[in-house]
Amino acid sequence: KEVAKLLELKAHLGGDDGRPQFVLKTAKGTRDYNPKQMAIREKVFTTIISCFKRHGAGCVSLLLMFLITISKATFNHCLLIIFFFQMTFYQLHTVRVRVKVPFARYLAMNKITNIKRYHIAKVYRRDNPAMTRGRYREFYQCDFDIAGQYDAMIPDAECLKIVHEILSELDIGDFRIKVNDRRILDGMFAVCGVPDDKFRTICSTVDKLDKLPWEDVKKEMVQEKGLSEDVADQIGVYVGMQGGMDLAERLLQDQKMCQSKQACAGLTDIKLLFSYLQLFQATDKVVFDLSLARGLDYYTGIIYEAVLSQTGVAPVATESSNGALTEECVTVGSVAGGGRYDGLVGMFDPKARKVPCVGVSIGIERIFSIMEQKAEASAEKVRTTEVQVMVAAAQKNLLEERLRLITELWNAGIKAELMYKRNPKLLSQLQHCEETGIPLVAILGEQELKNGVVKLRDVATRDEVDVSRAELIAEIKRRTSEA
Amino acid sequence: KEVAKLLELKAHLGGDDGRPQFVLKTAKGTRDYNPKQMAIREKVFTTIISCFKRHGAGCVSLLLMFLITISKATFNHCLLIIFFFQMTFYQLHTVRVRVKVPFARYLAMNKITNIKRYHIAKVYRRDNPAMTRGRYREFYQCDFDIAGQYDAMIPDAECLKIVHEILSELDIGDFRIKVNDRRILDGMFAVCGVPDDKFRTICSTVDKLDKLPWEDVKKEMVQEKGLSEDVADQIGVYVGMQGGMDLAERLLQDQKMCQSKQACAGLTDIKLLFSYLQLFQATDKVVFDLSLARGLDYYTGIIYEAVLSQTGVAPVATESSNGALTEECVTVGSVAGGGRYDGLVGMFDPKARKVPCVGVSIGIERIFSIMEQKAEASAEKVRTTEVQVMVAAAQKNLLEERLRLITELWNAGIKAELMYKRNPKLLSQLQHCEETGIPLVAILGEQELKNGVVKLRDVATRDEVDVSRAELIAEIKRRTSEA
Repeated sequence: KEVAKLLELKAHLGGDDGRPQFVLKTAKGTRDYNPKQMAIREKVFTTIISCFKRHGAGCVSLLLMFLITISKATFNHCLLIIFFFQMTFYQLHTVRVRVKVPFARYLAMNKITNIKRYHIAKVYRRDNPAMTRGRYREFYQCDFDIAGQYDAMIPDAECLKIVHEILSELDIGDFRIKVNDRRILDGMFAVCGVPDDKFRTICSTVDKLDKLPWEDVKKEMVQEKGLSEDVADQIGVYVGMQGGMDLAERLLQDQKMCQSKQACAGLTDIKLLFSYLQLFQATDKVVFDLSLARGLDYYTGIIYEAVLSQTGVAPVATESSNGALTEECVTVGSVAGGGRYDGLVGMFDPKARKVPCVGVSIGIERIFSIMEQKAEASAEKVRTTEVQVMVAAAQKNLLEERLRLITELWNAGIKAELMYKRNPKLLSQLQHCEETGIPLVAILGEQELKNGVVKLRDVATRDEVDVSRAELIAEIKRRTSEA
Repeated sequence: KEVAKLLELKAHLGGDDGRPQFVLKTAKGTRDYNPKQMAIREKVFTTIISCFKRHGAGCVSLLLMFLITISKATFNHCLLIIFFFQMTFYQLHTVRVRVKVPFARYLAMNKITNIKRYHIAKVYRRDNPAMTRGRYREFYQCDFDIAGQYDAMIPDAECLKIVHEILSELDIGDFRIKVNDRRILDGMFAVCGVPDDKFRTICSTVDKLDKLPWEDVKKEMVQEKGLSEDVADQIGVYVGMQGGMDLAERLLQDQKMCQSKQACAGLTDIKLLFSYLQLFQATDKVVFDLSLARGLDYYTGIIYEAVLSQTGVAPVATESSNGALTEECVTVGSVAGGGRYDGLVGMFDPKARKVPCVGVSIGIERIFSIMEQKAEASAEKVRTTEVQVMVAAAQKNLLEERLRLITELWNAGIKAELMYKRNPKLLSQLQHCEETGIPLVAILGEQELKNGVVKLRDVATRDEVDVSRAELIAEIKRRTSEA
C-alpha cells in the first residue's frame, strides 16, 4: 500500500510542469541488454544449449533459495534462523557462486539417483563487480551435470568433451582445459609432509599459481600458513608439472607420489580419462596440470578449468589473502570449470545416501563480453531481428492490401514486418530494410494488384522480380532457406 | 565469511553418524521444475518467442530494479530512500506486476523513441501464491511492446493478432479477447455523471464484473464509493454491452455517449481496430466489451485481456475491496492482457518527452499449468531429452568402439547418448531407449565391426538393418528428419 501511494505520488509528479529534477540509475554491477547485445547472447546460449542437448541432457529449473530446518536439540533456534537467512541471502548476494548446492538439494529432496541435466540460471554475487571484465552482480551461469553410479571417468570425460565442443564452436580464440584431481592434490600434500589439517588452506594457496609467481605462493605457504621451507619446495616441484597421459604414467612411477594410495587412484583415473578423451578427439586442448586446485571444497575427484589463451583482459588482483574467495578471483580468461563432487548430495539427504555427481559450469558473461567486443571490432552488422521480408507499398492507400498480404505470410510462418504508417514512402521502407538487414521486400503497387503478383526485391542486389501471389510464400521460403 | 563458516559447519554435520535431523523446504509459492515440466515449458516459450520473432521483435533484457534519485529541495532525504527501497523491494515482492515500468525507464534512460521488442523475465509477486492455479511467487512473464509515434491502431491491432496467434497455436482450448478503451470508459463515466475524482475508483469496481454479478458491483459503487443509484444504473446499462464493430458504430450514434469527445475518439479507434483485425483474420475471437476496465492506471487508450473459456479453474475470491489489487485478482482464465500506455515513458524522462507505447503481457504460468494438466491427462509420453540415437554394444569390451562412434555422431551434430558403463547389457540399453523415447539404436558388435557396419534399430518397430559406417550419419539424419 505504501508502495502504491508512492507510485501514485510519482505519477502525480510526472505530470507537473514544475516537475522535480531526478536521476535514473541502475544498481552497480547490473546492466540492461539492448537488442543487439541480446542477439549476441542468444547465439551464445543457443550454442551451449544445443551442445547440452546433443549430449542428451534434460532441462531443469531449480530454486536457488531454500530452507533447511535443523530439529535436533543440540542446535539452537538461533542457528536455525541463521541457516534460513543464509539461504535467502544466498540468492541475492551469494558469496561464492555455488549453483551445485541447489542441484544437490533437489536430488536429495526428490530422491533422484541418476539424472543428466542442464540448468541456465541467473545467479548473484556480492563482491566487487567489474563490468568491463564481464563480472556482474547479476549474471547467468550454465550448468551441466551427470548424477549417478557409473563406471569411472566415462561421464567425467563427457563433461570435458562438452567444454571442448562449446569453446570450439563459439570461436572465441584458443583455449586450454586444465585437469587435475583432488585426490592427487591431497596425496601430494601428504607425501610432501603437509599436516592433514592444512590441506585445504594450502590447496587455496596453490590455486593462486595462475595469478602469482611461485615465489609469492611459496612465501604465503611458509610465512602465512606456517609450512617449512622444505615442504613448500617439495610442493613446488610437483605443482610446476604439466603434461598429458605420459605425466600421469611418470608420476605413478614416482618414488614419493606412489606412497599415497589416494594419489595413485587419482593418477590411474587421469590415465583412464585421457584414454577416453583420445577417443573423443579432445586431447589437443587438455592439459594435466598439478597446480590446478579450484577453491570449492565440495570436489572429491577430478577437477578442471577452461582458460582462454589470449583475451586481452587485465589480470585480476587477489582480493583476499585467506583464500576464501578463490572462486571469486577467477583465473584470467577462465570461462568454465567443474569437477566431481560425490559427497554433496549426501549432505542434504537425511540418511546421508550418496549420489556421485560430476558437472561443469560455463561462465556465460565473460564469453559474452568477448563476443561483444569481437562484434564491435568487426565490420559485420549484428541483426537484432530475424525478419525475412518487409511488406511494402509502392503507392498510397495500400494499407489494407499490406495488412492482407502480411497476414498470409504470418499464417505461413514467415517472419514479416510492415511500417506502422498508413502511407509510408517506398524509400523509407527500403531504407528500413537496409538498416535492419531484412533480406527481402514484397512490394505491392496498383499494377501488381491488378496482375495478381507481388514485386519481390532482393535488398542486397536490388534485383526485382514479379512473383504470383500463389507462389509467393514458397518463393520467400526458398530464398530465405538458401541464405 | 559468516556464511562460509556456517557452510563449513553444515558440511561437518553432514559427515557424522549422529547427524542432526533436518527438513529441507522450498519457500511457499516457489517450485522446482523437473525435466518433464521443463520440456512442456520449453514448448510454451518456443511458441511464444517464435510468434514474437515472426512479428519482427528484437529481444531485450531489462533490469527490474532501479534507483530514482529526486534532487529537488522540496523532496526530503527520507522520500529519496523510500523510493530506492520501493524499487529494490519491487524486484522481490512487487505489489502488482508492472513490467512495463522497467521498459519505460529503459526507453527514457536511453532516449529510445521507437522499438519493437520482447522480454521474457522472471518477476515476483508478494501476495498469496496459489500454486494449483498457476499463481507463484516467482514466475515468468512474456512481454511484447511496440514503442513509437505511428498511425492509429496499426501496432495495437498487431498486438491483438499476436495474442490470437499464440493462443491458437498453444491449443489450450477456446478463448476470447476482450477489448475496450480507457477513453471510452472515462467518457462513459463522465456522461453518466461520475465525478472526475472518482473515475479511477469506479473503474476498479467495474473491473470486478468478470468475477461478481452486477448487483454486487452496483452495491459497491453506491454504498462504498458513494455514487447515486441513478448514476450506477446508467453505468450498468453500458457495461452490459458486448459486440463487435457494430456496437462501436451504435454507440457513436448513442445520444448520451456522443456527448463525450473522449468516448467518440475511443469508439472511432475501436472501429478502425476491428477493420484491421478483419484483415488480420482475428475477429472471430475478439469482443468489444464495455465492462473491461483493467486495474493498472497507466493505460491511456485501447486495453485488452484474453480469457480462456473452459479452464476448470476455481473462481478467484476478491482479495481487497478497495480495488488496489485488481491486477492481482486476475480474471478466471485470464492469460494475457495489455493496452496502450502513452504517458509512462514521459514519467521517467527529465523533460517529460512522451513515447507512445502499446504492448501485451502473456501470463506463462497459467498457460503452463493448463498444458501440464493436459499432458498428465493424456496417455502421450512427454520426452525430456531430444536424443536421436543410443550408441549401444551387443557384447562386452566395446566401450572404446562406442566412444569412437559417438564422437563421430556428436561431431556431425547428432544428438546421441551412451550408457556410462563399461559393459552394459544390450537389454538394459534397449530398455533405456523405450523408457526415454529415443527412436534409434546404433548397435555395435564384433561381427558389425568386422563388416564395417552398424546395426541400426528402430525402437518402435524393432526393425534392424545393417548400415555401413560411411552412410550411418546420413541415414540417421534422414530417419530423424522424417519423424
